[in-house]
Amino acid sequence: MSEPLPAFDTHALIPAIVQDAQNGQVLMVAYMNREAFQKTVSTGHTHFYSRSRRALWKKGEQSGHVQEVRSIAVDCDGDAILIRVTQRGGGACHAGYRTCFFRSSTDGKAWRVSEPQVFDPGQVYGQKPR
Amino acid sequence: MSEPLPAFDTHALIPAIVQDAQNGQVLMVAYMNREAFQKTVSTGHTHFYSRSRRALWKKGEQSGHVQEVRSIAVDCDGDAILIRVTQRGGGACHAGYRTCFFRSSTDGKAWRVSEPQVFDPGQVYGQKPR
Repeated sequence: MSEPLPAFDTHALIPAIVQDAQNGQVLMVAYMNREAFQKTVSTGHTHFYSRSRRALWKKGEQSGHVQEVRSIAVDCDGDAILIRVTQRGGGACHAGYRTCFFRSSTDGKAWRVSEPQVFDPGQVYGQKPR
Repeated sequence: MSEPLPAFDTHALIPAIVQDAQNGQVLMVAYMNREAFQKTVSTGHTHFYSRSRRALWKKGEQSGHVQEVRSIAVDCDGDAILIRVTQRGGGACHAGYRTCFFRSSTDGKAWRVSEPQVFDPGQVYGQKPR
């Protein structure tokens, strides 16, 4: 392929889907800038860019729930990436769930928690959840 | 949950990850506006909003490769959704692959096709690929 991939958007970001390499569970979606992407590739641990904090962060930096990269794929348009990982620790979600997608709905209006909480975020993150 | 979910962004869009409900394969990522989300819920088939064409579209409208919704989940921040589907027809990708994530890389620079092509996009889409 000759085009530069991935293709960062006008904000120099790209959405990254993180999937459990073992069981296929989609764990989270976060954004990467070029630096986060390169750090993810070079270190083998996922790094992201926080749009609200305007800062690079390493997943699991505080919680220890790091994600070890198993494979990286890019989509047909080049504007989204899929990272399969081994999730260390309790889970990916700062709210204490294995996946950030822990609420489901059948009507798109009422949402219920559909996943078990696997750790106490207060204990893991203290006062600074990430 | 009291907050209105999902939380559309400043462009009134939300990224929707589409996952095969049977085997867990991540098929594609596309964007929904409120109308696309509501149509997805009400019809049971995925609908998206094309940012380039500025139009609502139904997945499989042209190809027949529709996606039947099995479940809808929202993430902790409420700003991404995960839709598990039964993928009808050859696949989700307009380039002829089951998944849009058909290219992989180990170094983040060189990308190789890592999925089999399952249909001929020229035959399915003719001159107007979607």
